[in-house]
Amino acid sequence: MKYGFALFGAGRIGQIHARNLAAHADAQLLHVVDLSAEAAQRLAGATGAKVSETHVALADPAVHAILIASSTDTHAELIQAGARAGKAIFCEKPLDLDIARAQHSLAVAAQAKVLLALGFNRRHDPAFRRLRREIAAGRVGAVEVVSITSRDPSPPPPTYVARSGGLFRDMMIHDLDMARWLLGEEPTTVYARGSALVDPAIGAAGDIDTAVVVLETASGRLCQITNSRRCAYGYDQRIEVFGSAGLVRADNVPATTVETAGTDGFTRDPALPFFLERYAAAYRHELDEFLQALRGAPAQIATGEDGLRALQLADAAQHSLESRAAVSI
Amino acid sequence: MKYGFALFGAGRIGQIHARNLAAHADAQLLHVVDLSAEAAQRLAGATGAKVSETHVALADPAVHAILIASSTDTHAELIQAGARAGKAIFCEKPLDLDIARAQHSLAVAAQAKVLLALGFNRRHDPAFRRLRREIAAGRVGAVEVVSITSRDPSPPPPTYVARSGGLFRDMMIHDLDMARWLLGEEPTTVYARGSALVDPAIGAAGDIDTAVVVLETASGRLCQITNSRRCAYGYDQRIEVFGSAGLVRADNVPATTVETAGTDGFTRDPALPFFLERYAAAYRHELDEFLQALRGAPAQIATGEDGLRALQLADAAQHSLESRAAVSI
Amino acid sequence: MKYGFALFGAGRIGQIHARNLAAHADAQLLHVVDLSAEAAQRLAGATGAKVSETHVALADPAVHAILIASSTDTHAELIQAGARAGKAIFCEKPLDLDIARAQHSLAVAAQAKVLLALGFNRRHDPAFRRLRREIAAGRVGAVEVVSITSRDPSPPPPTYVARSGGLFRDMMIHDLDMARWLLGEEPTTVYARGSALVDPAIGAAGDIDTAVVVLETASGRLCQITNSRRCAYGYDQRIEVFGSAGLVRADNVPATTVETAGTDGFTRDPALPFFLERYAAAYRHELDEFLQALRGAPAQIATGEDGLRALQLADAAQHSLESRAAVSI
Amino acid sequence: MKYGFALFGAGRIGQIHARNLAAHADAQLLHVVDLSAEAAQRLAGATGAKVSETHVALADPAVHAILIASSTDTHAELIQAGARAGKAIFCEKPLDLDIARAQHSLAVAAQAKVLLALGFNRRHDPAFRRLRREIAAGRVGAVEVVSITSRDPSPPPPTYVARSGGLFRDMMIHDLDMARWLLGEEPTTVYARGSALVDPAIGAAGDIDTAVVVLETASGRLCQITNSRRCAYGYDQRIEVFGSAGLVRADNVPATTVETAGTDGFTRDPALPFFLERYAAAYRHELDEFLQALRGAPAQIATGEDGLRALQLADAAQHSLESRAAVSI
Repeated sequence: MKYGFALFGAGRIGQIHARNLAAHADAQLLHVVDLSAEAAQRLAGATGAKVSETHVALADPAVHAILIASSTDTHAELIQAGARAGKAIFCEKPLDLDIARAQHSLAVAAQAKVLLALGFNRRHDPAFRRLRREIAAGRVGAVEVVSITSRDPSPPPPTYVARSGGLFRDMMIHDLDMARWLLGEEPTTVYARGSALVDPAIGAAGDIDTAVVVLETASGRLCQITNSRRCAYGYDQRIEVFGSAGLVRADNVPATTVETAGTDGFTRDPALPFFLERYAAAYRHELDEFLQALRGAPAQIATGEDGLRALQLADAAQHSLESRAAVSI
Repeated sequence: MKYGFALFGAGRIGQIHARNLAAHADAQLLHVVDLSAEAAQRLAGATGAKVSETHVALADPAVHAILIASSTDTHAELIQAGARAGKAIFCEKPLDLDIARAQHSLAVAAQAKVLLALGFNRRHDPAFRRLRREIAAGRVGAVEVVSITSRDPSPPPPTYVARSGGLFRDMMIHDLDMARWLLGEEPTTVYARGSALVDPAIGAAGDIDTAVVVLETASGRLCQITNSRRCAYGYDQRIEVFGSAGLVRADNVPATTVETAGTDGFTRDPALPFFLERYAAAYRHELDEFLQALRGAPAQIATGEDGLRALQLADAAQHSLESRAAVSI
Repeated sequence: MKYGFALFGAGRIGQIHARNLAAHADAQLLHVVDLSAEAAQRLAGATGAKVSETHVALADPAVHAILIASSTDTHAELIQAGARAGKAIFCEKPLDLDIARAQHSLAVAAQAKVLLALGFNRRHDPAFRRLRREIAAGRVGAVEVVSITSRDPSPPPPTYVARSGGLFRDMMIHDLDMARWLLGEEPTTVYARGSALVDPAIGAAGDIDTAVVVLETASGRLCQITNSRRCAYGYDQRIEVFGSAGLVRADNVPATTVETAGTDGFTRDPALPFFLERYAAAYRHELDEFLQALRGAPAQIATGEDGLRALQLADAAQHSLESRAAVSI
Repeated sequence: MKYGFALFGAGRIGQIHARNLAAHADAQLLHVVDLSAEAAQRLAGATGAKVSETHVALADPAVHAILIASSTDTHAELIQAGARAGKAIFCEKPLDLDIARAQHSLAVAAQAKVLLALGFNRRHDPAFRRLRREIAAGRVGAVEVVSITSRDPSPPPPTYVARSGGLFRDMMIHDLDMARWLLGEEPTTVYARGSALVDPAIGAAGDIDTAVVVLETASGRLCQITNSRRCAYGYDQRIEVFGSAGLVRADNVPATTVETAGTDGFTRDPALPFFLERYAAAYRHELDEFLQALRGAPAQIATGEDGLRALQLADAAQHSLESRAAVSI
C-alpha cells in the first residue's frame, strides 16, 4: 500500500523529504504547500505532486500523513491542524521554540490519537545507529561518558540567527537528543558555556556561536557536547561513548578514501560538507521508519515527547548560559 | 530528452543497470530481454519496461541504446546486431573471451559508426576518479609504480569458473584496465604467476584463484597487481600510485566509520562486502557518462578499444602463466 | 659540564628520573634519598649514586640541583630546604595539596633566587609539543575550544586515593596544566561534575573516578576535559585544539602500527599501557629542558607558578563539584 | 657477564652498533677499527673503547665477538679472520657481493664452529616481529601472498651505487630476506623488472632505482616486492601478509600522532625519515638477540645461511632483470 503525503515547506529540507517520498515504493507525495508559490510549483513539478493550500491538503482523504518542513513558527499550528484532521504527523525539529506551545501540540496530537514523529535525523544515521546497537550489545559495558562534537561548516545568516531561538534550540538540540538517546538515562543537570567567537553579528544578536555543555544523569553518567558555527574541515559530526569495557565511536565521513602523500605528510579528505551530504542516508532511513510506524509495525522513531525533552534541555542550557549556573531539570 | 534503452540480461548486473536507468531523469528503460522469462518479467515489472525478444527490441525505433549485461558468450553477437540496427551500445566486460571475435565486433561497430562503450565500472568509482585527477594535476609528479590490490570476498561456483575464461580474463581484466588507465602508457611486457590456493576445484578446472602480475611500459613504468578469489575482510579494492613527488592511493570503503576499542585494541569495519555495494556510485556515474556520450558531449567512457586492450593483456597474462615466461605485447 | 643531582624518592617516577640522569651526558646522579633504605640502595646501585640522608645531600657542594619525586606531603619541606641550600629544584607535580603551603614554597624559592621547575611531563611529549608549535605557527587560527581526554588504565589502590588529594589535584592537574598551556589565556571559570562509577571504594573514600570539567577564559575560549580512572584500551591521552582555521590534535600512541584484518574488520593496537611507556620520551626531554635552564639558556620548563595555577584550578574544580556550581577564579 | 666486542667500521651503521654496545648491560665495546683514524678515534672516545688495528683486536682474548660494519668488500676477509681467531661474528648485510666468496666465508665459520649472525635488522623491528608472531599464531590462516613495499627517501651518491652491487644486492636484499622469513617456504622462482627513473646517473652506472620483483614458492605462495631509491614522504617500509583467514600488515611509523585539519583535509606526519630512526629499536633488539645467542640461549638471529640465501635471490633477480626472463633457484 502507498501512503499519501502532504508536504509543508519546499525549502532545503522539504526538498530532501520530497525527493525521498517520490522515490519510495510505499509513499506518494500528493500535495506541496509553501508560502512561495514558485518554490511549491517547482518542487511539485519535480515530484509529481500538486501545489495546494493547507486546508485542501488536510481535507484530502488520500493524505495519510503530513510532513512539516516549514519554518519553526508554523510547526505548532500545523501539528494541531493535522492532528485534528486525523493525519499522522512527521515534524522537523524543533517542535517549537516555546515549551508551553510544544506541550499543547503534543496534547492535541495525543487527544486525536495520531502518530507524531519528530525529525531527529541523526538517530537514523548508519554510524550512530551502530553506536546504539553496540551499546545495547554490551560492547562498552556500562555507559559512563558520552562526548559529542558537532560543528557546522559556516554560520547561518544573521536573519536566520534572529529567528532561530538561539544555538541551543536550533543547533545543539540535535546533540541533546543524541545525548538522551545514547546515555540511556535522562539528564538531570545541565551546565552551558558559550561565546560569540565566529561572527560578531551573532553576538550582537544576543546569540553565541561556540559552546560547551555538560549533562549529568541521576546515576552519575556524564555527557559533554561541543558546538561551533564554523568548521574549516567540513561538517564535524563525531560521537564517542565511553564505558566500563571500552569505547565505541563514530568518526566523520569523508567524500572518498583517497589519500595523498608528499613531503608534508599524508593528507586525506575533509569531512563531508554539510547535512545534505552527511545525512543523506539518514533522511531515507528516517522515512522508512516513519512508514513502518504508519503500518503499525515496530519502528525507531523519535516521538513528540522526545522533541519536547530535547527542547527542555535546550532551554535549560540557555538558562544556564545566562545565569552562569548549573540548571536542574 | 529521454534516451530509450533495451537491456539484455536480467541477472545481478542487469538489475543494477535497470534500476539506475529507471531512476535516471534522461533515460527510459523500454525492453528487458533474458533467456529466463521469469527473470525478465520480474525486472521489467519493477522498472516499468516490457519483456521483449531480441529482434523486437532492436527493431524498436524508440530504442537509442542497448545495454548488454547478458552472459559473455552472447556479447559479440549482440554488439554486432545492435550495431547493424544503428543502436549505441554499452557492453559489460569482457567484450569476448576470444580476441578475434572481439576485434570483429569492434570492426562492425566502427563500420556502423555507433558508439560502443565498455562497462569498466571502476573508472567511475569516485575514489579512483580522484586518483586520476590527482595524477593529472601533478600531485605525484611522474608516475613510476602502480600497485593494485583486488580480492573478491569468495570464489565463484565451479560452473562459473569453467565458463569464465579464467581469472585473468574474468577478474583481473578490471585491474588491467585500471593499470592502463593510471600508468599513462601502454604496458609492453606482462609477467604472471598464479596458484589455486583457495579452492582445489578451481585448480582442477585448470584455473587459478591467486595471482600476481607485473606490467612494464616502454619508458620503464611498472605495475604490480595481486588478485585473490577469497578475502576474509570484504571486497579488497585498493590502488596506490607512486611517483617522483609522492603517492596517491585509494583505500577500501567501510560500511560505517564506527570503531570500537577494548583490551584487544581498536576495531573498525571490514571493507564493503562486494561490488554491488562498493561500486554502487560507480554504476550510476557510468550511466551518466554514457548518456553524456549519447548526447555527443565529452564523456569519460571506456571504449571498445579499451576492452580489446585489456583483453589482450589478460591473454598475455594467461600465456605468461602457462609458459612461465614474460610475454611481450 | 656535568650537573650534580640529588634525587628524593626512589619509587616509580624516581626510578625514571634516576635512569635518565644516569644516561645523560650533562648530568650526574650523586645522591639517592628514600625512606626505604632498600629502595634507595637498589636505585643508587643501579645508577652509580650513593644513598644519603637529606641533610647530607643538601650539604654537598657538588649537588647543583635536587629532583623531588618523593610523596606529595614531603614536597613543600624539600623545596624549602633545597632553596635554602641554594639548589636548583625540579619537583614532581603537585607542588602540594594545600595552596597556602604551595605559595609559601614558591616564596621561599623566590627569595633564595633558585630555579624551581615543576614536573608537568606532558609539556615535553613530542606530540603535545607539536600541538603547541602548530598553534603558535597559526595552523588553527585563533584558538576557540580545547578538548582533553585523559584516562588511566586502572584505578589506583584505595590507600593511594585517600592520600591523593582527590582526582582533580592528583590526576586532572596534568590536564588543567595542558589547558592553560594550550588555551593561551588563563581560565576564569571552572565547572566540574564527577561520579564514582569505576570503583565504589573510591566513592566511599569521598572521591570520584570519572569527571568532566569545563573551563572558560576571559575572552570566551572554552575547554572541556574528561577523566576516568579506568580505560580498557590503554592509557587514553588525547588532545584536540579547535580554532578559527581548523583543528590540530594528538592521538594515542600504539605499541606498533600492526593491523590485522578478518571477518570482524580491521584491528590495531590499543594505546600504550601507561605513563611509563607513553611519556618515556617526555621524561627525557623534560630533563634536557631543565638542564638547559640550569645553564641559563632559554628553556621550556613549567615553573612553580605554573604548578600553583594548576593547583588553584584543581581546587576550584573540587569546590565546583562539591557546591554543584561554577566557580570563578 | 659482559661480552667483549671489537667493532670494524666506524661509519653510520658502526656508530649505531657502538652506541648500543656501550649502553648494553651485558656488552663491552673494547676495540674500534677503521681505515680512518679520525673516525675510529671519535667513536672510540665516545664509547670508552680504544682504537686498534685488526690483528690486535682479533688477538685480544677479552674479545668474544666481532661486529663487522665496514664496507662490503671487507666482509669476507674479516669473517674468515674472525672465525680463525675463534670469535663469534655479527656481520652487517650483505655477506659479500660474490656468492662463491660468501659460501667460502660460511665454510670457514662452520669449520671454526663459531657463531655467524647476519645483520638483517628488519627481523628485529617490533612491528615486523609482530607480523611473524601473528602468522605463527594462525591469525591469517595459511599464508598466500606477501607484499613488501620498501622505498628509500633519496638515492645514494653515484660513487656508492658503483660499489653497491646493484639495487637487488644492496637494497632489496633486506626485502628478499623478509620474504623468506614471512613466506614460510623458500622461493623457487624469481622475476624482476626495474628502471632508472629517479636518477639518470644510476642508469648510466648500469644500475636501476625502481624495481618490482615477484617470487613464487614450491607450493604456490606468491610475493611481490617494490623498491624505489626515492620517496617524498619518508622511508616507506610496509609489509602485508595475506592468507586464507585474513590479512596482517605493518604500516609506516610517523614521528608523532599529530594531525592537522583545515580546508584541504586532514594531514598527518610523513613516515620516519630513514633507517636510523625507523629501525632504532630494531638495532637494539638485534644486539639483544645476538647476546642471547652468545650465551647459548635460544635466539632469533639471521644466520650466515640466511645471508647466503638472500644473496642468491638477489643474484637471481639481477639475472632476471638482465635476461628479461624468470629465473629458477
